Amino acid sequence: MTTSDMFVGVDIGNTKLAVGLLDRQGVIQTSARRPTSVDSGASSVVETLLAMTGEVIGERGNRVAGVGIGFGGLVNIHNGIAVSSPNFPGWSNVPLTAIFSERFRVPTAMDNDANASALGERWVGAARGMDNFVYMTISTGIGGAFVLDGRLLRGQSGYAGEVGHMIVDPDGPPCRCGKQGCLEAMASGTALVQFAREAVEDGVPTRLGEMAHNETGRITGELLHRAALEGDGFARQVFARCGRYLGIGIANIISVLDPSLIILGGGVMKAGAFFLQAVEEFVARKALREGQLAPRIVPAGCGDLVGVVGAAAVALATVARSADASE
Amino acid sequence: MTTSDMFVGVDIGNTKLAVGLLDRQGVIQTSARRPTSVDSGASSVVETLLAMTGEVIGERGNRVAGVGIGFGGLVNIHNGIAVSSPNFPGWSNVPLTAIFSERFRVPTAMDNDANASALGERWVGAARGMDNFVYMTISTGIGGAFVLDGRLLRGQSGYAGEVGHMIVDPDGPPCRCGKQGCLEAMASGTALVQFAREAVEDGVPTRLGEMAHNETGRITGELLHRAALEGDGFARQVFARCGRYLGIGIANIISVLDPSLIILGGGVMKAGAFFLQAVEEFVARKALREGQLAPRIVPAGCGDLVGVVGAAAVALATVARSADASE
Repeated sequence: MTTSDMFVGVDIGNTKLAVGLLDRQGVIQTSARRPTSVDSGASSVVETLLAMTGEVIGERGNRVAGVGIGFGGLVNIHNGIAVSSPNFPGWSNVPLTAIFSERFRVPTAMDNDANASALGERWVGAARGMDNFVYMTISTGIGGAFVLDGRLLRGQSGYAGEVGHMIVDPDGPPCRCGKQGCLEAMASGTALVQFAREAVEDGVPTRLGEMAHNETGRITGELLHRAALEGDGFARQVFARCGRYLGIGIANIISVLDPSLIILGGGVMKAGAFFLQAVEEFVARKALREGQLAPRIVPAGCGDLVGVVGAAAVALATVARSADASE
Repeated sequence: MTTSDMFVGVDIGNTKLAVGLLDRQGVIQTSARRPTSVDSGASSVVETLLAMTGEVIGERGNRVAGVGIGFGGLVNIHNGIAVSSPNFPGWSNVPLTAIFSERFRVPTAMDNDANASALGERWVGAARGMDNFVYMTISTGIGGAFVLDGRLLRGQSGYAGEVGHMIVDPDGPPCRCGKQGCLEAMASGTALVQFAREAVEDGVPTRLGEMAHNETGRITGELLHRAALEGDGFARQVFARCGRYLGIGIANIISVLDPSLIILGGGVMKAGAFFLQAVEEFVARKALREGQLAPRIVPAGCGDLVGVVGAAAVALATVARSADASE
């Protein structure tokens, strides 16, 4: 690996596709972004991604040391296959790394989006240089990844880090995973919106109904955030409730892993002002045992770019590993 | 290290003290056991332990390669200090390894009882030769330890593995740790007995009251187990409830760590027939995501000897590490 090497990050999310070309320092040199057309099937999405990758590489093909792919679903990292995803119902066992490495003739690796984001945060974000930390993303779902002794914890099936599917309330609402009261069913963006819509339908006093022109289907996370910013008490309660459950989930992670750093990313963090204090209070008051140091809880550092940066970090990690092995 | 080396294991529990001399294969050659007199203070307990250790070593002092101590409380493994324990209210910062290494002139190391037990299970128990597994002990409290890539996960303050303090029911009863609805408050031996006593006082139909001569204070874990064996429906329900909460706790561990092996030890496992099936059903039905392999869930292999074997395993691990480092 040389300092002039560049890395491509391919981020496959359920609402957008993003591809970036990054230098060795993690700075994005060029990027492209398109909406995801989930319904058009895997092969059409793959063609779009290949075209976008060709665009961002341009004339610099000989400097690209690796391509990394972050996929919002289940990934078999050993053979580079995107196995399945709730966000991509038509996808089944798509051999993405083979397709990309054949087209661009460089080492290609893939990981799920949470693992990729954790590597991105370690490269240029809030975990720079850290060998032990927890990454959590609070978005439409809730995901996570653990870096322990400098490596991602994977588990026997590659499912380690699924913090969104810890049960935090056994009598809570059903989760799409089949359990009840998972953290994701209580505190994800989807759960917040669902909870708000039901409350508005039940006639809870709030300006949300009016803001949504009395169509509860128009209540979104953004609208909920705007209502909270404008002082709507109910909207603020929804975020406080989210903070309580996140606090429980984070307390459980602290009990199990005793980490020194917890990084919170994902779209719901845009409304962090309305729930982070509740999380921190719960942790300070409830999560720690006598003598236990509190972990730092910090917002993610890569922001909206984490998908592309994380995917490129997957490439960097793979290239670094094979350089180590061949020495 | 030679094959004729022997290891001493010193197990400091809240009801009994046990010391054993083990050979390199983990077979106990001699052992001693005394009830713990918690109230007599640290120095008296330490004197007893030193005398017991002298007894089991006897004339074989020159073959002892190391002493290991397992302590049922918070341990600073770096300086070998027993920091504190809910079971030993009078103890504070007892420098046990210094005391033992000075007396017996051999390398001495200490760890908490859950970590020691995990090492014991890896040495001669249910995790023989395994580099990745979860150990849980369901006893008066609920503790745990994780071996990942062959090493104990410790966390920043040495508190990793505290599975008993995951919140599994936010509206559950208070836990001695200050939170509510921790796994330990729902499914430990103490929680089962507490639950049964309250139910008997409330007049729930069961033979337990009669068996305890109508003194609820005489209801113990053993009595509850006997009642279940004799067919008492309520006693069986108590264990089924325990199984449900253990199932939730284990499902959460599976979500977070995706382990291939979970070992269950501790005294409550004697009644395992009355709740293990519920645990396994919950895990099979609820804990796994699509494509995720089920972990094996097995009873601990060291039985009642795990304290002594685990403590000796702490000595073995320390001696093996320093042998590696000096090579």
